[in-house]
Amino acid sequence: MALLLDNQFPELPPDKSVDTKLFLEAVSHIPLFFDCLGSKVFSIIKSDINGNITKIKAVYVQDPAKYVTLQHILEAEREAHGAEWPKVGATLALMWLKRGLRFIQILLQSLADGDRDENNPNLIRVNITKAYEQALKKYHGWIVQKIFNAALLAAPYRSNFLKALSKGEEVKEEDCLANVHQFLLNYTATVDAIYEMFTNLNAELDYTV
Amino acid sequence: MALLLDNQFPELPPDKSVDTKLFLEAVSHIPLFFDCLGSKVFSIIKSDINGNITKIKAVYVQDPAKYVTLQHILEAEREAHGAEWPKVGATLALMWLKRGLRFIQILLQSLADGDRDENNPNLIRVNITKAYEQALKKYHGWIVQKIFNAALLAAPYRSNFLKALSKGEEVKEEDCLANVHQFLLNYTATVDAIYEMFTNLNAELDYTV
Ligand SMILES: CCCCCCCCCCCCC/C=C/[C@@H](O)[C@H](CO[C@@H]1O[C@H](CO)[C@H](O)[C@H](OS(=O)(=O)O)[C@H]1O)NC(=O)CCCCCCCCCCC
Ligand SMILES: CCCCCCCCCCCCC/C=C/[C@@H](O)[C@H](CO[C@@H]1O[C@H](CO)[C@H](O)[C@H](OS(=O)(=O)O)[C@H]1O)NC(=O)CCCCCCCCCCC
Repeated sequence: MALLLDNQFPELPPDKSVDTKLFLEAVSHIPLFFDCLGSKVFSIIKSDINGNITKIKAVYVQDPAKYVTLQHILEAEREAHGAEWPKVGATLALMWLKRGLRFIQILLQSLADGDRDENNPNLIRVNITKAYEQALKKYHGWIVQKIFNAALLAAPYRSNFLKALSKGEEVKEEDCLANVHQFLLNYTATVDAIYEMFTNLNAELDYTV
Repeated sequence: MALLLDNQFPELPPDKSVDTKLFLEAVSHIPLFFDCLGSKVFSIIKSDINGNITKIKAVYVQDPAKYVTLQHILEAEREAHGAEWPKVGATLALMWLKRGLRFIQILLQSLADGDRDENNPNLIRVNITKAYEQALKKYHGWIVQKIFNAALLAAPYRSNFLKALSKGEEVKEEDCLANVHQFLLNYTATVDAIYEMFTNLNAELDYTV
């Protein structure tokens, strides 16, 4: 479980603000998650998410003192970009990044909860589909949805995926799932806080790609 | 026809060597081609090709005097990388880039030659499929092939595609196709020369993604 558990997300403060620096450090390990999926098909998604992170970081490093929390970035960009906002800059990058993060959250949660296709207990398609439907599908036009369905065929077996999450360490399945559970605590709280912030700032868009 | 004809590829010298600087300048306009396809689905492909070009350029600018022709780059990398070569560096980037260039060449040639699906005369799926089969399919595993089939549904209508190639200028279809024909002369010669170079240097690989 090295990959996930070595890179726990930090606990949020009581006001649920997300520290930009700590967030960027924690998400920098997320693209590796897509390597656990095994197929080169997913490297496309990895670059999309990498692009989001790079874009947010580029804004942050311009003025770390000004952008202490993610909310500072959104507010500054709302100020700076007028009518273009929120479809612009680090706001747009975070809008999409949070959907990818939610996808991962629901997928891991579904595995930890034991959701299974009883007829194909070693497949994770039901878990991936659940995550896709809740996190991404509504933002995808029908062609990208078809592409998702094709890509789903490249999903790894459950056992291989759990092994990849544990990165070579010999961990029993139940320990691995317990670790996933542990990881999800701060991770889910962070993703929830970002979604709430987008709602509060009226920064969410629902156009499709 | 601004987009294509304003950016003619230069004529090759008798020895068919490809000048790196002129080549990089000419291909820098190629990613725009994917915007002519209309759908955001193709921006993924655009970034893949952009990545190839960036990689070749990064090697070139390190020592323009050493890398006057593309062949100089391949030979220097063969020298430098030993057994890793040719799956490495600008050689790998050019290996894939040339396949994208061949795809575009065959698609445009097929349009200029008047290949049509008589039942759907305003679709270009037959032309795209022909280009895919000849340039790319064998390098794609079955899942990426399925993704191609889904992406094909996002292909533009023939009339819109020709208009996009002409970038807003009011050009009659036959003039547009004549211009495509003209563009293809040096373009095809350049792509052919790169393929020949890969064969001669034994630099071609046929692994699938
Ligand atoms: C030769 C054959 C060729 C065929 C052509 C192939 C074409 C393939 C196209 C497939 C789509 C791949 C997924 C990428 C989708 C992306 O389009 C979307 C929107 O992406 C956002 O777009 C914004 C502008 O609207 C900004 O550019 C954002 O960038 S910005 O940083 O610049 O602001 C960017 O992230 N991201 C998404 O939908 C996010 C996706 C997260 C995915 C999470 C995991 C899913 C796992 C699935 C497992 C089964
Ligand atoms: C949420 C939903 C998510 C679903 C997941 C979506 C996943 C989508 C994946 C689809 C594949 C998209 C096409 C990209 C394919 C690429 O994988 C390949 C190989 O790409 C090469 O790989 C090398 C290593 O092997 C190096 O990294 C090269 O990079 S390097 O520069 O670093 O050396 C890189 O170009 N390029 C290709 O096959 C080239 C493609 C050219 C395309 C030409 C036009 C086709 C037009 C089709 C019109 C209908």
